This record gives sequence, C-alpha cells and structure tokens, in this order.
Amino acid sequence: MNDLLLRALRREPVSRPPVWMMRQAGRYLSEYRAVRAQSDFLTMCRTPELATEVTLQPIDLVGVDAAIIFSDILVVPEAMGMSLTLDEGVGPQFANPLRSPTDVARLRPVEPREQLSYMLDALRMTRRALNDRVPLIGFAGAPWTLAAYMVEGRGTKQFAVAKRMLFEQPAMAHHLLGLLADAVGEFLVAQVEAGAQVVQLFDSWAGALAPDEFRTFALPALARAAQRAREAGVPVIVFAPGAGWALDEIAAATHADAIGIDWHTAPAEARRTLEPFGVAMQGNLDPCALYAPVEEIRRRTHAMIEAFGPVGHVANLGHGILPDMQPDHARAFVNAVREWEWTPARIDQWHATHDAEPSTLVGAP
Amino acid sequence: MNDLLLRALRREPVSRPPVWMMRQAGRYLSEYRAVRAQSDFLTMCRTPELATEVTLQPIDLVGVDAAIIFSDILVVPEAMGMSLTLDEGVGPQFANPLRSPTDVARLRPVEPREQLSYMLDALRMTRRALNDRVPLIGFAGAPWTLAAYMVEGRGTKQFAVAKRMLFEQPAMAHHLLGLLADAVGEFLVAQVEAGAQVVQLFDSWAGALAPDEFRTFALPALARAAQRAREAGVPVIVFAPGAGWALDEIAAATHADAIGIDWHTAPAEARRTLEPFGVAMQGNLDPCALYAPVEEIRRRTHAMIEAFGPVGHVANLGHGILPDMQPDHARAFVNAVREWEWTPARIDQWHATHDAEPSTLVGAP
Repeated sequence: MNDLLLRALRREPVSRPPVWMMRQAGRYLSEYRAVRAQSDFLTMCRTPELATEVTLQPIDLVGVDAAIIFSDILVVPEAMGMSLTLDEGVGPQFANPLRSPTDVARLRPVEPREQLSYMLDALRMTRRALNDRVPLIGFAGAPWTLAAYMVEGRGTKQFAVAKRMLFEQPAMAHHLLGLLADAVGEFLVAQVEAGAQVVQLFDSWAGALAPDEFRTFALPALARAAQRAREAGVPVIVFAPGAGWALDEIAAATHADAIGIDWHTAPAEARRTLEPFGVAMQGNLDPCALYAPVEEIRRRTHAMIEAFGPVGHVANLGHGILPDMQPDHARAFVNAVREWEWTPARIDQWHATHDAEPSTLVGAP
Repeated sequence: MNDLLLRALRREPVSRPPVWMMRQAGRYLSEYRAVRAQSDFLTMCRTPELATEVTLQPIDLVGVDAAIIFSDILVVPEAMGMSLTLDEGVGPQFANPLRSPTDVARLRPVEPREQLSYMLDALRMTRRALNDRVPLIGFAGAPWTLAAYMVEGRGTKQFAVAKRMLFEQPAMAHHLLGLLADAVGEFLVAQVEAGAQVVQLFDSWAGALAPDEFRTFALPALARAAQRAREAGVPVIVFAPGAGWALDEIAAATHADAIGIDWHTAPAEARRTLEPFGVAMQGNLDPCALYAPVEEIRRRTHAMIEAFGPVGHVANLGHGILPDMQPDHARAFVNAVREWEWTPARIDQWHATHDAEPSTLVGAP
C-alpha cells in the first residue's frame, strides 16, 4: 500500500509529502460530471456504488495519494430531521432552519449506524475497491459549521443570523453545539469502523467568528468531537479555515494529529506556530494558484513543500479545488509533489537553513 | 469643535476614544430608509442634498463623533466608464466586467474634479451643514478591491475570476491596479480640497488574497494611493479587512496615520503588532456583537477600549453595521464609548498592567 499519508500524519520520515486535494472528487473532472448528469448530488451521496465510483476517480485520473469518501457535511443535520436540498448554483438549503429552542428540541438523536448507514456502506465498498492502493479518508462537518447552516438555513456571506444566536441565545447555542459534537464524534467513530483510515473534521465557517466566540462556542465543541473521534484509533485532521490565528489553540484543545492550514496562512508561519505541539500539517496552496501556467504551479508547489519542511506535511490545497479548474492544472500540482524528493542532503540543508530561525526571531516585533 | 477623532488619529491625549461606525448612515436607521424609499442608492450618492441629509443623520440620532460622507466605493470605476447598477438585495453590478487588456485600455482616465464633482459637492455641503460639530471623513475603495469588482462584475464569495487574472495575466493586473491607485489617490486629494478632514481607504477584499498576492498586487497599489492621499495633509486611515496577518506590512508600506482593525483580530494583538510603527488604530467590535443585550454590548465595548489602550484608538465596529440592527443597540455601543473615561489613574494602571507585556512575550512560541 501507498501509506505515505499515514506516515506523514504520524510525522515519520517520508521521501516526499503525500498529496490529495479537498473536493478532488468534483466538478472539475468530466468523469465526475458524467456521473452527476445522471443523478442529483444527494442521490450520489446515498448510493454507495455512485459514491464509490466518484471517490475513486481522482486516484487514477489525477494520481493523488489518498481517497476521501464522496459525501457532504450536511448529511448529519439531515439525519437529525432537517429537510435538506442541494441544488447546484443555489447551494445547500434547509427548508426548516432552527430559530428557537423548540426547533432544537425537535431534532432527532443521531444513531449514525442507522440513519447514516448509506455513507458507512459507501466507505466499506470504497475500501474494498481501493484494495489498499491508497488510504481512505472519512470526514464530517464540525459542530459550529453545521449549527451555522442549520440556523441560517443556507450558506451566507456573514452568517449573521447564526451569530445572532450566539449573542442572543447562548444557552440554546451551547445545547445545539453539544448535540452536534456528540453526533459528529460518534459518526466519525462509525466511519472508522466502516473502513476509514483517517478522518477529517471540517469547521468551514470558523472564520465567521471573532476570537471570543470561536473560543467560547466553536472550539470546545470541535474539541469534543475530535477527542471522541480519536478514540477510534486513526489519525484525526482538523481544518478550520479562516481561523489561522488560532492554530495553536486548535492543536492544544483538539489533540488532533494534524491541523489543516488554509491558504491565508504562510506555511513557515504555521510551522513555527505548531512546532511545540508535535502535530502534522496539511495544506495549503491557494486553489486559485492552479489558474497559473503549469510551470508556475510547479514552482509554487515546490516553494510550499520547502516552507512546510520535511517532517509531518501532507500536501493539499488550502481550500477545495475550484469547479472550473482544468484537470491538467490539478495534475501539475499533484505531479509537482510527486517529483519532489526529500533526499538526506536536502533534509540536512533544510535543517541548516531553518533550525536557526526561531532564535533570530526572538524579540522581533 | 469635537475634535476627538483628529486628536486620537494624531495619538494625542484624549479623555475617551472618539467613536463612529462604518455604514453609520445606513439602513438600520428608519430615517435613512425614509430617504431611500424616495430615491435609489446611486441617485442619493449623486444628489448632494440627499447625501448630506443621510450623512448627518447618525450625528444627531446616534451621537457619533464623526461624519463619513454618504457614497459608494464603486463611483470610481463608474467614472472610468463602467456601467454600474446598485440594487438592494442583489448588490452592486457592472454590466461590462473587465476580462482582457482591451477592456482595460478602454477605461477613461479619471479627473475626479469633473466626473466625481457630485461627491465633492456633497462633501462641501455636508461640511457647511456640520458647522464644525464633528470632523468629516472622505473615503475611497482601494485599488485591489475596485479591480476585483471590475473584473468579477459583482461581489462574489471567493473572487476567483479576479484572482485568476492575477495568476494568468499579471501584467494586465499590475496595469489596472496602477491606473486605480492614481485615480483613487487623486480622488482623495480632491476630497480633502472639498472639505474632508480625514480620509479612509477601504480594501474590503484584501482577505481574498493569499500573502504572496497581497504583497505583490494589492499592497503596492494601496501604498501608492495612500501616499498620494497623505500629500493632502490630513490623516489617512487604511482598512484592509481579512488581512490581519499583514497589519505591520500595511503600516510600513502605506505610512498611514491609522490602521483599521477588523473583528477577527484581537485588539491587544493588533496593538502589539503595530506598536513599533507609531500609528493609531481604529476598530473593532464585531458588528454581530450588537445583537447582544445592551448591558453585554456595554461590557464588550469597555473591554475593547481597555485592550486597545489609552493612546491612538478610534472606537468603531470591525466591519459595517448590519442593516437589521436595532438603533438602540447602535446607541448602546456609542454610549458605552462616550461614558468611558481615561482618567490619569486609569492610564497609570493601564501602563502598569500592559507595559510589561512585550518582555514576557519574547521567546514565546
């Protein structure tokens, strides 16, 4: 098996970083669009054969080192009784957003092995089909992100309605986040039982919160979900885009094995911040950088690998790949990682250059 | 005259911070909505009597310490020949977005004293009407933000089309940003001639850029516009929300008198980062925090003032006030600032508590 991903997540020596891309099973691939033309998004999520098919596509077509199960973070709120529609162009919508404690009280408890068995089936089927070629990643949305969608009813620019709940009805917010933390944690454990070899928590709307609210509401719930997931015994990746200022707090609170780095954060900065926590890092090329000419993509990818350094780095984009990206440009990114080599000489040189950094930085403004 | 704003921007002693709110002349006020019901947004911008009327409203109704002229950042691209529509609900749109160097070549040079004379007239009329009660702020959009709208044709979540230009057509991007820097810089100078006593540059989409592109494209153009504006001799405020990681670089490159702080950034963090640059700071309560009960707004506002400290702070929100905010909650924020008092004893205590900070931080991860 190509176990580069697992080794990098454990911070073991690797000759090059593993590489995969968020949303790698997606619309930029014509092979994906061909499947999508035959059935809607949620049907694809709920049909293990279809989910397996598109999950496998980027392994062969793009050459990534990991598969991530095709699904959506909003399947959890749906399992709790919310009516979900997912139309391309419009985005996900809940017909019955949560606005009061009564709405929250009506949510069903989630037994993922029952209500979400279709995703667990998809994981089992994909794991068999992969036949140990590359590791399989499961995932779930983090509590705050799910709560934000459930309260707003849809994605918005500022999530002002969801944030209003935090300020006006903090008790309701804490209750909802607690329910979600337990549901999501248990869901990730079930995914590992079904074959996921790594799991990732996406707190996609972490960036909608100011530091106080992130610390008070989002982070404790994220930590609770991550810690439950860790009990399943596989590496846990936590990705909270827009909260680059909180990387150290996220690492400390979640005990995650790896922290996703968004494209706002300079890799060297992330590395220095996370150094004391002994975690791996995943990221972080700006998805828009794949619009550049392929030679430029290669140059930027190599600069990124160099900046993250030889230990505990999983190469990825800093956000999902864009639907209008040319597959050749995605391949240019993946190939640039695959051709990289952390030779002993290069590792020595990297340490000679970078190990001096912290002392020169002490006392800088 | 109430010159608290000017004194705080010069980092002179003040008994309390001045306070104003971005979008303070806006939809949260029923008096604004009454004017808006009679004419569309752009007509209000282009009619000095109407612009003056709504600019003055929050002075009396909310009690802020500054007026900011009612206008829109997109009047500059419009003056360059782009066809602008501004519909509430949809947001601003250009019928003819820029997609090629030929499109850029067709842009008209801006002579603000001609094409934008209506805004200069509004400034003159407002300044007379204010009769020195509070200072008058002029403003303009920063080059990157204007370019992003001009290329996209409208506001978007990721500005992927505009960013694509940076990666695919960097020469066109630099040319466009240069044109805009000159136009905006000259516009701000003309605003000062017409009576603006402070000017602010809004780089509202700074946060759409990763560090490399911010440094390569947005920051040099922002700096060029800010430096031209400074020649007019009044304080220049630069606000680049979403680029909190770059506060020091923005201060160094723009030589601005004050840096706007968005609500993502903790005030104490901003203060420590900007300390070596001797600039004032403006911000930064999360606009959503005004949904909290008024007593909680008061508590948070006081905590914010304490965290920014006694020197060079202009109290503001960290983004525009939300259109559905209750005016009483806006007043609770403003009143909390107005009741604050930086007594000599409180200032001494603040220094005793905070001056030790930097040395304890040296060497921290």
